[in-house]
Amino acid sequence: MEKEQINNILEQLLEGQLSQEEALDHLSYPGFDDLGYAKVDHDRLTRQGMSEVIYASGKTPEQIRGICLNLAERGESNILLTRLSPAKAEKLKDLELDYQTIAQLAVFKPQAQELRGNIIIATGGTSDLPVAEEAAITAETLGSKVTRLYDVGVAGVHRILAQKELLDQARVVIAVAGMEGALASVVGGLVACPVIAVPTSVGYGASFNGLAALLSMLTACASGIGVVNIDNGFGAAVLAHRINTMTACQD
Amino acid sequence: MEKEQINNILEQLLEGQLSQEEALDHLSYPGFDDLGYAKVDHDRLTRQGMSEVIYASGKTPEQIRGICLNLAERGESNILLTRLSPAKAEKLKDLELDYQTIAQLAVFKPQAQELRGNIIIATGGTSDLPVAEEAAITAETLGSKVTRLYDVGVAGVHRILAQKELLDQARVVIAVAGMEGALASVVGGLVACPVIAVPTSVGYGASFNGLAALLSMLTACASGIGVVNIDNGFGAAVLAHRINTMTACQD
Amino acid sequence: MEKEQINNILEQLLEGQLSQEEALDHLSYPGFDDLGYAKVDHDRLTRQGMSEVIYASGKTPEQIRGICLNLAERGESNILLTRLSPAKAEKLKDLELDYQTIAQLAVFKPQAQELRGNIIIATGGTSDLPVAEEAAITAETLGSKVTRLYDVGVAGVHRILAQKELLDQARVVIAVAGMEGALASVVGGLVACPVIAVPTSVGYGASFNGLAALLSMLTACASGIGVVNIDNGFGAAVLAHRINTMTACQD
Amino acid sequence: MEKEQINNILEQLLEGQLSQEEALDHLSYPGFDDLGYAKVDHDRLTRQGMSEVIYASGKTPEQIRGICLNLAERGESNILLTRLSPAKAEKLKDLELDYQTIAQLAVFKPQAQELRGNIIIATGGTSDLPVAEEAAITAETLGSKVTRLYDVGVAGVHRILAQKELLDQARVVIAVAGMEGALASVVGGLVACPVIAVPTSVGYGASFNGLAALLSMLTACASGIGVVNIDNGFGAAVLAHRINTMTACQD
Amino acid sequence: MEKEQINNILEQLLEGQLSQEEALDHLSYPGFDDLGYAKVDHDRLTRQGMSEVIYASGKTPEQIRGICLNLAERGESNILLTRLSPAKAEKLKDLELDYQTIAQLAVFKPQAQELRGNIIIATGGTSDLPVAEEAAITAETLGSKVTRLYDVGVAGVHRILAQKELLDQARVVIAVAGMEGALASVVGGLVACPVIAVPTSVGYGASFNGLAALLSMLTACASGIGVVNIDNGFGAAVLAHRINTMTACQD
Amino acid sequence: MEKEQINNILEQLLEGQLSQEEALDHLSYPGFDDLGYAKVDHDRLTRQGMSEVIYASGKTPEQIRGICLNLAERGESNILLTRLSPAKAEKLKDLELDYQTIAQLAVFKPQAQELRGNIIIATGGTSDLPVAEEAAITAETLGSKVTRLYDVGVAGVHRILAQKELLDQARVVIAVAGMEGALASVVGGLVACPVIAVPTSVGYGASFNGLAALLSMLTACASGIGVVNIDNGFGAAVLAHRINTMTACQD
Amino acid sequence: MEKEQINNILEQLLEGQLSQEEALDHLSYPGFDDLGYAKVDHDRLTRQGMSEVIYASGKTPEQIRGICLNLAERGESNILLTRLSPAKAEKLKDLELDYQTIAQLAVFKPQAQELRGNIIIATGGTSDLPVAEEAAITAETLGSKVTRLYDVGVAGVHRILAQKELLDQARVVIAVAGMEGALASVVGGLVACPVIAVPTSVGYGASFNGLAALLSMLTACASGIGVVNIDNGFGAAVLAHRINTMTACQD
Amino acid sequence: MEKEQINNILEQLLEGQLSQEEALDHLSYPGFDDLGYAKVDHDRLTRQGMSEVIYASGKTPEQIRGICLNLAERGESNILLTRLSPAKAEKLKDLELDYQTIAQLAVFKPQAQELRGNIIIATGGTSDLPVAEEAAITAETLGSKVTRLYDVGVAGVHRILAQKELLDQARVVIAVAGMEGALASVVGGLVACPVIAVPTSVGYGASFNGLAALLSMLTACASGIGVVNIDNGFGAAVLAHRINTMTACQD
Repeated sequence: MEKEQINNILEQLLEGQLSQEEALDHLSYPGFDDLGYAKVDHDRLTRQGMSEVIYASGKTPEQIRGICLNLAERGESNILLTRLSPAKAEKLKDLELDYQTIAQLAVFKPQAQELRGNIIIATGGTSDLPVAEEAAITAETLGSKVTRLYDVGVAGVHRILAQKELLDQARVVIAVAGMEGALASVVGGLVACPVIAVPTSVGYGASFNGLAALLSMLTACASGIGVVNIDNGFGAAVLAHRINTMTACQD
Repeated sequence: MEKEQINNILEQLLEGQLSQEEALDHLSYPGFDDLGYAKVDHDRLTRQGMSEVIYASGKTPEQIRGICLNLAERGESNILLTRLSPAKAEKLKDLELDYQTIAQLAVFKPQAQELRGNIIIATGGTSDLPVAEEAAITAETLGSKVTRLYDVGVAGVHRILAQKELLDQARVVIAVAGMEGALASVVGGLVACPVIAVPTSVGYGASFNGLAALLSMLTACASGIGVVNIDNGFGAAVLAHRINTMTACQD
Repeated sequence: MEKEQINNILEQLLEGQLSQEEALDHLSYPGFDDLGYAKVDHDRLTRQGMSEVIYASGKTPEQIRGICLNLAERGESNILLTRLSPAKAEKLKDLELDYQTIAQLAVFKPQAQELRGNIIIATGGTSDLPVAEEAAITAETLGSKVTRLYDVGVAGVHRILAQKELLDQARVVIAVAGMEGALASVVGGLVACPVIAVPTSVGYGASFNGLAALLSMLTACASGIGVVNIDNGFGAAVLAHRINTMTACQD
Repeated sequence: MEKEQINNILEQLLEGQLSQEEALDHLSYPGFDDLGYAKVDHDRLTRQGMSEVIYASGKTPEQIRGICLNLAERGESNILLTRLSPAKAEKLKDLELDYQTIAQLAVFKPQAQELRGNIIIATGGTSDLPVAEEAAITAETLGSKVTRLYDVGVAGVHRILAQKELLDQARVVIAVAGMEGALASVVGGLVACPVIAVPTSVGYGASFNGLAALLSMLTACASGIGVVNIDNGFGAAVLAHRINTMTACQD
Repeated sequence: MEKEQINNILEQLLEGQLSQEEALDHLSYPGFDDLGYAKVDHDRLTRQGMSEVIYASGKTPEQIRGICLNLAERGESNILLTRLSPAKAEKLKDLELDYQTIAQLAVFKPQAQELRGNIIIATGGTSDLPVAEEAAITAETLGSKVTRLYDVGVAGVHRILAQKELLDQARVVIAVAGMEGALASVVGGLVACPVIAVPTSVGYGASFNGLAALLSMLTACASGIGVVNIDNGFGAAVLAHRINTMTACQD
Repeated sequence: MEKEQINNILEQLLEGQLSQEEALDHLSYPGFDDLGYAKVDHDRLTRQGMSEVIYASGKTPEQIRGICLNLAERGESNILLTRLSPAKAEKLKDLELDYQTIAQLAVFKPQAQELRGNIIIATGGTSDLPVAEEAAITAETLGSKVTRLYDVGVAGVHRILAQKELLDQARVVIAVAGMEGALASVVGGLVACPVIAVPTSVGYGASFNGLAALLSMLTACASGIGVVNIDNGFGAAVLAHRINTMTACQD
Repeated sequence: MEKEQINNILEQLLEGQLSQEEALDHLSYPGFDDLGYAKVDHDRLTRQGMSEVIYASGKTPEQIRGICLNLAERGESNILLTRLSPAKAEKLKDLELDYQTIAQLAVFKPQAQELRGNIIIATGGTSDLPVAEEAAITAETLGSKVTRLYDVGVAGVHRILAQKELLDQARVVIAVAGMEGALASVVGGLVACPVIAVPTSVGYGASFNGLAALLSMLTACASGIGVVNIDNGFGAAVLAHRINTMTACQD
Repeated sequence: MEKEQINNILEQLLEGQLSQEEALDHLSYPGFDDLGYAKVDHDRLTRQGMSEVIYASGKTPEQIRGICLNLAERGESNILLTRLSPAKAEKLKDLELDYQTIAQLAVFKPQAQELRGNIIIATGGTSDLPVAEEAAITAETLGSKVTRLYDVGVAGVHRILAQKELLDQARVVIAVAGMEGALASVVGGLVACPVIAVPTSVGYGASFNGLAALLSMLTACASGIGVVNIDNGFGAAVLAHRINTMTACQD
């Protein structure tokens, strides 16, 4: 709790607007609901501008439903569920989720909104689509406009060069690539806006489930690239959305 | 070269403002100077808003001087030299570099400028300062205002919590930490702005020269965090500067 | 065998309470039963205060049954079977095991007992429950009181801070977390009692099946943390139980 | 700050013992001093029963001196400096540190105290002494009694078996070993008290700077073993001290 | 081909016992049959004292049958097939293999023989049996006597110590263990004969599929230990058999 | 686009053979078709002498069909599909692919052609056949003659030595081997032509899915060996084909 | 020895041109000289078209001199010494080596020769020069013409695109790059000739001494790329020379 | 202590040849001397047929001297000191060690003895000599005859094939090789006696300090190979000596 908030409470207490007990409650309120198996973070929306996201992997359908309903009760909407398998989604159909098979992602209590800015999501190949779509749908759910630019890997570098004009209109670019992940370096050398790189587990042998792409992106000779976890389209989208929706810089 | 630029040249050719030879020259101009051991990228300033940066490690003093002078001849200033050892800096003193020992970084042809926005650079400990300072000086050289918030690691989590108000004023936060790198997760959970995480090689044993912090930051449970290479304060600053100086989002 | 024990036998021999053969037997008794595929360690209860635990993975149901029955014959109870799949548990239902599905753990010949002290088991998220429950049931079977504090990961650090009072009542805390495992560092910085960290394989990509959390916990900047193997709730509970049930320190 | 502390302040405020400004100060006091390059954690002594420890590696002598003096000004004593090279120690001789060469460790403002309990520190070989001594001196500085049991590695397993009686008197054992680190398993199977394992970087080739011992200790077939970072004698001692000085368990 | 053999052929040629063509054939005979997908090595029996062994993994049943029949045609017997799954064994039942399910190993054209010497095969636990049995049956098929000593891991070190007398009768010991593989070190310190260590993939988490045991055995502080590949009971048995059946050393 | 091509277009423009719009189109033509999920690279045939190859893993049957048909529409033939599972091949049977089960590879629009030169493909064992056949069929589809030399691993080094004469007739050799991959070193020491090494994932334990063979081939003491990714028969064949079909060197 | 050679000897023996002893000598001649610490391979020149190369690292100056002189006695020239430190070169100055400091490489008994064909050596940056020069001088010593194309990394992709015309004239390209090694992918997608990729240890942090570049090059999405060991300019040159000097393909 | 030894003591006690105190002493004698920093294992000579060996790395000269003198006092000779740097050897010259610079190994109290049997030590190259000599001198000190066969690596496989006759006379072969370590596979396929493989750290880049050779040797397709730690010539010699000096096998 911040100093100003504390002072307000103290003033209300001194002025009698709050009883001592009420002041105590406010000053010691935890900001979450405790379901036993989960402590649902209701403070996140005000603290970070987005609801808690449910990482569905490793949770039972019952636990997922419980968290969803708790968030809904508190009036939250556009709640994301990531890494949700079709089998689990089927068991949760009473929730009327908006489920996207390719991205293994769902939105609970979806709500239309106007999309702003411009995030370009580029992929090295067609096999990177599941990760790219996880990013795209996440960003759109958060309120960002997305331009998809798929299969522009560097084995045919003219494909990405042909899109220079398009790339220049982006406020932020997400580069999604597996294998050697060189797309991030090439894009990073072409644009002046922030670039977020997502290594994917596409590939075999020495790609070591995405390790080759991850190391490659981290050591990219182009500068100004932030990297997220292997296959983490969701995380890239959250970061991209924050950047995309920034207000103007002032001195 | 973009379509519009090509069309302009064609029109000038047809209108006789350019000879066929001149048009040919323009349409096939490479955008760099070739020094044999280096191809100095003069297109970068227009393409990406910053001069080419010289990674001094593995280059001889003669090669570094050659690149510096070539950039200066073309009128560029505020040229960064990273990973420059004191010994090499000494051999280049004729260039009148602005050299920072702790960050092993120099600026050639430094030029005063107004600093804008607000980048907060937080570190887990005092031992992370060399990396943090590389980030800070880079960002300032590029034109961003920097707030230093050093030694706020999670072993005493109240130190970072006490700075919540300060953190809320950042346009972007750079979290610099070695050992287990948990600072990124905690900061990522506290702020609503973009966070860039820099793992450092501070630590020993199972920190494996920064690997522990790197993996930790990549898998941080907080979302919206972009990670750069181990000890890469420079790269974090470039990305932070791009985010910090963004214009307003419009739909 | 310890000196005192040897001397006792020698005295009994000299006083005629033992024949030479009996003395020889006692002095050379191995302390285990040999079933061919297993040497059941009956000395462990006296040596370490707990019966041999059966690691069920990689053993056939027949081998498991054989070891269980041998332990029972010798009068042992509250015998733990860890990593026991539901399929194997089904094949052993004649043993009337107390089987816990979520923890893949069973107790053979369970016996009620009074629980003592206070072990707090905290998890980073809901997906860490299987490991946390393995720890909780193991500790309770051994005789320790357990307080569950689930889903208090650092992405919302106020959730764990809100439990400071609770944490202060623990004699030992077990911190269970996957992904970047930062929970161990934060808890380690908050409490004054011993902390045991259990990395879990929850996560994907650069979590490398728990490696990220493991390295993170080993390099935690907070001191006083002991780490166990990835997903090893059982081992953490044994250590925690030993600490929890300690007698008072004297000089 | 805990609920009770907050309530006390509110009561003092209401009763006029504190002005609103003073109450505000107390409620928002960060608990550390800010030296710019370091935020010295003065809350740690009350929070965790021991002063902040200075990890000297990567800090300049000036920074180390600054932190030392700040701690001393606040009245703290028995301040530990770990990983302090002889060269740096020499530059800090004005502080009259109690410096131990073999352990690369110093105590600032040492203060005699009575030692309590019994921690046994066992090593696999003579080459493990630097790590073992770091643990021993740390534990003694914190107030624990230490018994050294060096060079009892399993290549001659009778050496450790001969000490069974001694081991049984320990409240906690620290097993320090490099190479394959089997000492931890053997000790873990012999004693009933908590065991802390410290892998060391002693060895070559496939020991990979302590990795072999680390993995070995984490997967030890004996249960009840907590592992710390490679060569982290300090961390093992802090954990051992906390365990050693525990009060009696009550139900 | 060795010098003596060549000379013999030359003499036979000069004496007219061989035609030039025949001598050419002998001098250029490859020593194997070519089945297209396999070159069956018939020279191995004379060169190394044992038939070619068929590594069944990755071969089709048809390929395996073809190699078996070719070896049989040449009069070889006691032919080993390793890593043969039950499903493939079923498809090859026309060959009347002697198939051992637990060891996933078969013998084609088994032939009774007298067993010589004494190889002790010790395991850390019951879960190591599949690897141990692969070793045991291989050694017996080659003609060595085997003594099984299972489940004598170091968590209860008295179990192995109780077998000292038995161990002293071995000509060679094979130590089979997963997890931390400390059995090899302890056995290596107890006996005077050669020790072969087989790390197994038994374990989880930081055992990394046998890596922990492998590194541990390679860095064992006891000397005189040769290590084979993870789970390679077969290879250990071949080496043990060679050692076991050695003739007396002469100077 | 190359200078000469640009100049041709400019001349055609000036001579009125091209309108300004047409010249603009030519100068800015991207060279690929955009299917949304894929940008099919039609420039590759002229740029690199072979059609785009479809990496089927991670693509849906619909995506694969779409790319195939687009390539066919543009008149391309002998189109390779690699890593195509039997299940997907079945779903694409309307395309009348020439599918090879062992190599998991198909040719769409196969066209007979004369095969030239001589590539020898050698394998260490029979289990390496799937990778070797991927290489063989790829090379043949591209137009190279292939000689198969399977199961000549170094455990019986006479098998490869017996083929010296055959090896000397190769223009390039592909050495395919798993486990320790020593075949590459031995072949590399025997021949004077270029050698391409393909590590395979054949093996278990410390082969770490081909890592042992990969490292072994990269560090082969014989020089003149180029290595490709683990199990990458396709890539080896493309490189071998380029070498095999080279024209004569002139000065 | 090949069949034809054997037959010749047999015929000479039968015709009395060789005594039986001489025939025996020829048929059993090893093809190397034995210096005790080295067996100098004089067969290599005829077998592989180049003299044995001396890997100087780990050899004493005396051993190096001995091998050099032995090769010279047998009439060989243009003998390469790789990884020769300036200090060792100094101790061998009596040999009048042609020593290249930047490449740490020397030629003993250098001999002028005409250079043929065209190998292009491209580097990602200026820091890769030592490796590139090792490759260039090796190739020139072997007799190939070399075109140097340094500092064309993908952070400014126009630099390499501007050289398309030059690249098209290569018979083979060597791509030398550290950090993320993306140069190999981009070059591999641009040219139709064989490409050899050399990862370098240039970089820091997650480049892990060249591992990032190595994995990246092995998993390059462009096909037809052969990879050599990290920093192995020498090996790349040998392979490139063999490809460069190939004769024409015939069917 | 074995059963028979115990019984003897009991009988002596009963017969009055030993007092109760003496019997107690004998039954509880530890078998080593305790120097504080070391427990010198005097039981090893009788237990394993060789004195304790001093691993000098990480020990101070004073500690080494102390252990040496203690061993000498107990009448032991031919005491090995491994990994002894020239600097430390210099500080111990009062001990009149027999010091071998190339192997960094010394013998304290050397004593002439007859050498028996035949161990062949083969190396891949000249750079492997330090490890090979550590093995050779160790084996000779233990009493085995050694035949050195250096620089027979597989890049020129005829060098090792030429020694087939010599190899056939070995009772055991030690194969010492760095880089890809293929020597072990080739030797393992040629001989019928036990083979011990020693990977060395010779090489660079992907040899990862001996890891490539280690993995290669562990996965060698030839069977009957035991592997020791990287650069562990000492350990290989101990194992080889035990095998070399075996008595005849009887049934």
